[in-house]
Amino acid sequence: MPVPTSSTAQAPLPAFWLRDNCPCEQCRDPRNGQKLFQITDLPEDLALAASTEQDGHLEVLWSDGHRSRYPLAWLSAGHRGDARTEQDKRHWQGADFAAGIPEARWADYLADPAERAAVLRAVQRLGFAVLREVPAVERQVLAVAGTFGYVRETNYGELFDVRVEPDPNNLAFTSVAIAPHTDNPYRDPVPTLQLLHCLENAAVGGDSGLVDGFRAAELLRSEAPGDFAVLTRTLVPFVFRDRVTELRADRPLIETDPLGRIREVRFNNRSIGTLRLPAAELEAFYAAYRRFAAITLRPELQLEFRLDRGDCLIFDNVRLLHARTAFEQDGSRHLQGCYADLDSLASTLAVLDRQNAVLDGLQELFEGAGAEEYLGEAVTQAGHMLQAAVLAQRSGAPDHLVAAALLHDVGHFFDADSHRAVTGKELMAGHDNRHSHTGADWLARWFGPQVTEPVRLHVAAKRYLCAVEPQYRAGLSAASEFTLGVQGGPMTPAQAAEFAALPGAEDAVAVRRWDDRAKETDAATPPFEHFRPLLAALLAPLAVNGQPGKAS
Amino acid sequence: MPVPTSSTAQAPLPAFWLRDNCPCEQCRDPRNGQKLFQITDLPEDLALAASTEQDGHLEVLWSDGHRSRYPLAWLSAGHRGDARTEQDKRHWQGADFAAGIPEARWADYLADPAERAAVLRAVQRLGFAVLREVPAVERQVLAVAGTFGYVRETNYGELFDVRVEPDPNNLAFTSVAIAPHTDNPYRDPVPTLQLLHCLENAAVGGDSGLVDGFRAAELLRSEAPGDFAVLTRTLVPFVFRDRVTELRADRPLIETDPLGRIREVRFNNRSIGTLRLPAAELEAFYAAYRRFAAITLRPELQLEFRLDRGDCLIFDNVRLLHARTAFEQDGSRHLQGCYADLDSLASTLAVLDRQNAVLDGLQELFEGAGAEEYLGEAVTQAGHMLQAAVLAQRSGAPDHLVAAALLHDVGHFFDADSHRAVTGKELMAGHDNRHSHTGADWLARWFGPQVTEPVRLHVAAKRYLCAVEPQYRAGLSAASEFTLGVQGGPMTPAQAAEFAALPGAEDAVAVRRWDDRAKETDAATPPFEHFRPLLAALLAPLAVNGQPGKAS
Repeated sequence: MPVPTSSTAQAPLPAFWLRDNCPCEQCRDPRNGQKLFQITDLPEDLALAASTEQDGHLEVLWSDGHRSRYPLAWLSAGHRGDARTEQDKRHWQGADFAAGIPEARWADYLADPAERAAVLRAVQRLGFAVLREVPAVERQVLAVAGTFGYVRETNYGELFDVRVEPDPNNLAFTSVAIAPHTDNPYRDPVPTLQLLHCLENAAVGGDSGLVDGFRAAELLRSEAPGDFAVLTRTLVPFVFRDRVTELRADRPLIETDPLGRIREVRFNNRSIGTLRLPAAELEAFYAAYRRFAAITLRPELQLEFRLDRGDCLIFDNVRLLHARTAFEQDGSRHLQGCYADLDSLASTLAVLDRQNAVLDGLQELFEGAGAEEYLGEAVTQAGHMLQAAVLAQRSGAPDHLVAAALLHDVGHFFDADSHRAVTGKELMAGHDNRHSHTGADWLARWFGPQVTEPVRLHVAAKRYLCAVEPQYRAGLSAASEFTLGVQGGPMTPAQAAEFAALPGAEDAVAVRRWDDRAKETDAATPPFEHFRPLLAALLAPLAVNGQPGKAS
Repeated sequence: MPVPTSSTAQAPLPAFWLRDNCPCEQCRDPRNGQKLFQITDLPEDLALAASTEQDGHLEVLWSDGHRSRYPLAWLSAGHRGDARTEQDKRHWQGADFAAGIPEARWADYLADPAERAAVLRAVQRLGFAVLREVPAVERQVLAVAGTFGYVRETNYGELFDVRVEPDPNNLAFTSVAIAPHTDNPYRDPVPTLQLLHCLENAAVGGDSGLVDGFRAAELLRSEAPGDFAVLTRTLVPFVFRDRVTELRADRPLIETDPLGRIREVRFNNRSIGTLRLPAAELEAFYAAYRRFAAITLRPELQLEFRLDRGDCLIFDNVRLLHARTAFEQDGSRHLQGCYADLDSLASTLAVLDRQNAVLDGLQELFEGAGAEEYLGEAVTQAGHMLQAAVLAQRSGAPDHLVAAALLHDVGHFFDADSHRAVTGKELMAGHDNRHSHTGADWLARWFGPQVTEPVRLHVAAKRYLCAVEPQYRAGLSAASEFTLGVQGGPMTPAQAAEFAALPGAEDAVAVRRWDDRAKETDAATPPFEHFRPLLAALLAPLAVNGQPGKAS
């Protein structure tokens, strides 16, 4: 037997690591990847009894009798991290955005998952993005946060107002600049995201400024490593205290992870309380702090832009420092802001990336394998499904049924086990009489039951219609009549009654009828791309809805 | 000139530290303690030009001309921290609660600020507390969280249900135990508090278990320091992934602060993803992890108790591991849970402590200085104020006016500058004609304007009434007639009109009339304690209301 080794170091794979990662359904919930056992459930003397490589898998028999099967590709896969440290960020200075800052129109952000992913990726990688043409109405900022995460309520409420009112007695009134800072360092956990939505900006001046705090920290590390070390080690007492609040957090200005990578920056002189340290440490801290503060003010690090009515800035509050330039001339300025967190944004982005990959994959299927012949019918597979979708759309069907019609035969493309394409010949030979289930199961990884269940039942619907409508069977194509046998023949009256009682039965029958009619030789159909926005809208965008239950 | 030194180390006080802590109103917002300057605003060559000690203060003239004045007591004060690391916790094992767990009745928790502080302090110091007799209605858990903080919404929603339904087909149905774990380690920031509210528990078994994760980590450190170090250094990829979510956080199982103190524990085998490390590091991690896991299961560390209908458990989710014992017999069990954060809980506790200290201080005043004679009247100061409060209460006045009546002369106890008690003789000598303002300003540190403004205006109300009601002046006591002159005499008609237009004028007049009547020689009054719950309820309990505005 081959001695399994880890791909990175040619040492034997540690038994507990390997077993802890067993992907079988006994060990891991297939719905959410959560393990179903505790590490202490494994025997102390756990060992590999036997292992073999076969079919691209490492198969292991364990000393306790359990069997595991690992894809070799998994063994050598890399780590996908949480993208929270400096190594996963693109550090920047002001001039890097000479050609423009990351931005998108609100309408495009809502309609196009690729645009939405681009905006969220900018926040993750660059630390910020601006949405333009967001409706300039009160509380809209909460809706923006809701597109990727959850509002973090604080003692300032769900949202806060940043307002400068003109002073009618003093037209030359100049509101002071606000130096670059992060918000709420006295909170722990500190809000990791901030949103600022401009409802009005009639002021001259009062522009928004951003500084990449990771870049500033990196500069400090390279220019004065000792000062960098002091700021990562010194616990700074951040405090906010008023009549009804007393928030305290003792955290370093620059937080590094156990590998020494910059992870969070807190910078806000206003809320630094009194450090109580020996004098020499105070001297060292204030020297390092002043040096770091001076770096954050370097002109080349500043990015300035104007937020106008309808603009919404989203930024990383544990990385970027934000600022406001002085008002040169009077005028109302009103922003509404709220806090949210990076973890949900990253989750939304990851799901959007998966969903965009699914749409890309479906498009490839329609343009590749789907362009092949369809069971001896006079249309291609893709042509057939596109026709079905067009028929659904023309009949005024809701979007989820158009999607079900479009995707009803997608199971034909996959073998249930290997996910390899199934040829029409194999189906004709009776190999796949469960393509409706294969397709529905595959689709259920991204779509809800409104889409998947009509797909799952569309073959049963044929057997049902053959049982309850004699004229329906007479109208079947020759190929469809042939596969009816493979599929189980017409339902018995008892089966038909049971089917009709299923929640999705009516939708499945509708899909079935479009399916049957979608075999015109020369029907003009739009390309798959036409349906892409409709499919995109049906992909669940955030986790609150459709969550089957809490996993702790 | 004396060379100022820090009290801990007899070295000269660092100039930037001292200046950064200047308490003057130019440097620091008196409402919230936030600094009004940036560290970079200070000159590079900042130095002390001169300093003297006088009147218990260090007075400093700076090289840039600024003057600062520091109480000597402040110079030698200790650090008040954020109470988040092991040093601020009472570590425990199960037997420590043989006499009972920290708990309170919901009604007492709501009514009594001291009880409320005790519960929150238990969560902060021990990691948990149980509220009993909480109304067993859906969504009530959100109201519990709202008494000390803000609900952290996640992909599970605002709240989540933990339900085990009886299986009518299998009465012997046994639901499995859930091993001790922390929740949501794949989230970052992880929710630092969890609440579990029992709506129903008809099951036999299914008890709740808690383990002090800091204690477990401490044991690991003392028994196997190398393993402890491995767990603080190794970034564990926590993952939760389903159709609509993909949360990832790379964090150590045991997080220490820059001083090496245990700060957070994450422990959840279910959501540990695949570590990608050299084989030797994987071996070391799994050995340390298994040792730590075994410690968390030691019988002496387990605390088990039952949550019954109406019980709400609040616990620290970055310290305590929670568990559920197996069900021995079937029965419905339904909990509702939500997440919140420790920082707001600590803030609420700090404010409650301040408020309880204020009530204690007022009680001392009423029982001490207040028991002295009142300006030659036939009652004591305390007797006078208690009578006024009783009159207000008998007239059906709202609580805030009863409080204003009770506290209307509290300014007599303080000299505006020194806060030392002012004697009746001094007042008679015309020393304090502003006691209403002194009192209102002092009260405004804890009470809202509904209480403070009638106090502020009650002397003006006398001058107003003398102006608009001739018979009112005729009824004044001799002492009151005397002080009328000190206070400015009756208002002019213009002054009276201006006064009547003030928002609090009517309330102030009401307080004034009780004030005037509250001079009975032998009126029976309840002690100060009688009014304490009423005052407690008027002290702002949380930060959302009454916040003047956001400070970043």
